[in-house]
Amino acid sequence: MSRPKIRLHVEHPLSAGQTVDLSRDQANYLFAVMRLGPGDGVALFNGRDGEWRASVAQAGKRAGVLSVETQTAPQQDPPDLWLLFAPIKKARTDFIVEKATELGAARIMPVQTEFTNAERIRRDRLQAHAVEAAEQCGGTYVPPVDDLARLSDVLADWPADRQLVFADEALVGAKRALSDAAPDVTKWAILVGPEGGFSEAERARLRALPFVTPVSLGPRVLRADTAAVAALTLWQSERGDWR
Amino acid sequence: MSRPKIRLHVEHPLSAGQTVDLSRDQANYLFAVMRLGPGDGVALFNGRDGEWRASVAQAGKRAGVLSVETQTAPQQDPPDLWLLFAPIKKARTDFIVEKATELGAARIMPVQTEFTNAERIRRDRLQAHAVEAAEQCGGTYVPPVDDLARLSDVLADWPADRQLVFADEALVGAKRALSDAAPDVTKWAILVGPEGGFSEAERARLRALPFVTPVSLGPRVLRADTAAVAALTLWQSERGDWR
Repeated sequence: MSRPKIRLHVEHPLSAGQTVDLSRDQANYLFAVMRLGPGDGVALFNGRDGEWRASVAQAGKRAGVLSVETQTAPQQDPPDLWLLFAPIKKARTDFIVEKATELGAARIMPVQTEFTNAERIRRDRLQAHAVEAAEQCGGTYVPPVDDLARLSDVLADWPADRQLVFADEALVGAKRALSDAAPDVTKWAILVGPEGGFSEAERARLRALPFVTPVSLGPRVLRADTAAVAALTLWQSERGDWR
Repeated sequence: MSRPKIRLHVEHPLSAGQTVDLSRDQANYLFAVMRLGPGDGVALFNGRDGEWRASVAQAGKRAGVLSVETQTAPQQDPPDLWLLFAPIKKARTDFIVEKATELGAARIMPVQTEFTNAERIRRDRLQAHAVEAAEQCGGTYVPPVDDLARLSDVLADWPADRQLVFADEALVGAKRALSDAAPDVTKWAILVGPEGGFSEAERARLRALPFVTPVSLGPRVLRADTAAVAALTLWQSERGDWR
């Protein structure tokens, strides 16, 4: 029994013998686009119960039923890492959500900074991107995407036991300090700014906060989306589950 | 005198008192799109002579002349790191070239692997992407983009004094070994595979080569473009100029 090539995220609980009713979009994708038929295999995950092999029990144009068979991978949650980022142009914002999902962020938080142009985001669209990224990369976890919030409000309500890694452009060229910072802390977050960087007031506030660890991302100036991927990579390799 | 907001890559040698004739595209960009006029400042770099402040001496619709004034940044070359990658979908290939430039790759080498679909690439278009990325990120170096070559040929001609970091999907979840590998080597390269990964024969050959260091990029499967950014970040932070 070969591993199914198609992975599908569903909301339904998953266990042996369950049946899963497909939405119209899912049925269209599986049967019209991917041309599956009765008996064909699909890998399912719901973000909680690991990955399961299911097979097509009923296939229709607008509906269908899958039958859940056996678990093929355990649930694997990422480390307790949030990504805070300032929404930028549409394609690059989509990209940040996709990469954050692949690289194992546990929660994605769009924040409005002083230099952020975006007044609103399509939260549902970004969440769908996270789902699609998890389907593609073989993950069993989908990070929730929050609504847009003001950075100043997020910082005012910040939980005292969580460290915030701040990719500080003013530190370009300085040594980074992530491996030595806050050795006992297990709850973390990463903040990357918008294309224009942070304002002087934001930078001063961030650097004065006791839970903030500024880091440098090398001697070249990085675009916001590159900074997000680089910071996630560094954190995972030094503090996360790449060790 | 404020720092010019516009950065332009030119082929011309740069030194104080030089004049630089603009191409038709450059004149159109500066004078029609960006609305510069005589006396306005532009930052110039050519990949060799650092960054220079220039001002508009003559502005026309299809031509123009810049006058080079003072050097504003020294030439900064990246470490001796090549990126070898298998071309994938257009947008993601463009993305890899952009990110490799930002993250300080010295040379970009598209390679054809057994599972690569691309038969050819638009080398000139990818090179233009590298130029644009350097203009945007404040860099003074533009990595050359090679023509597409077969991975097997590239490996057959490999220089013995250069280590090749191989992002091995089969190592997902294993420890990475980059910080301890080949401590005296200063010439490096990174190889990331296509979406379908490497073939078994390619993987076996790579692992048997004396100059290859396999590394893991964490417990989740990464897309090819994510793997490129993550591997460049890890190398720069552990062996490159982010230290």
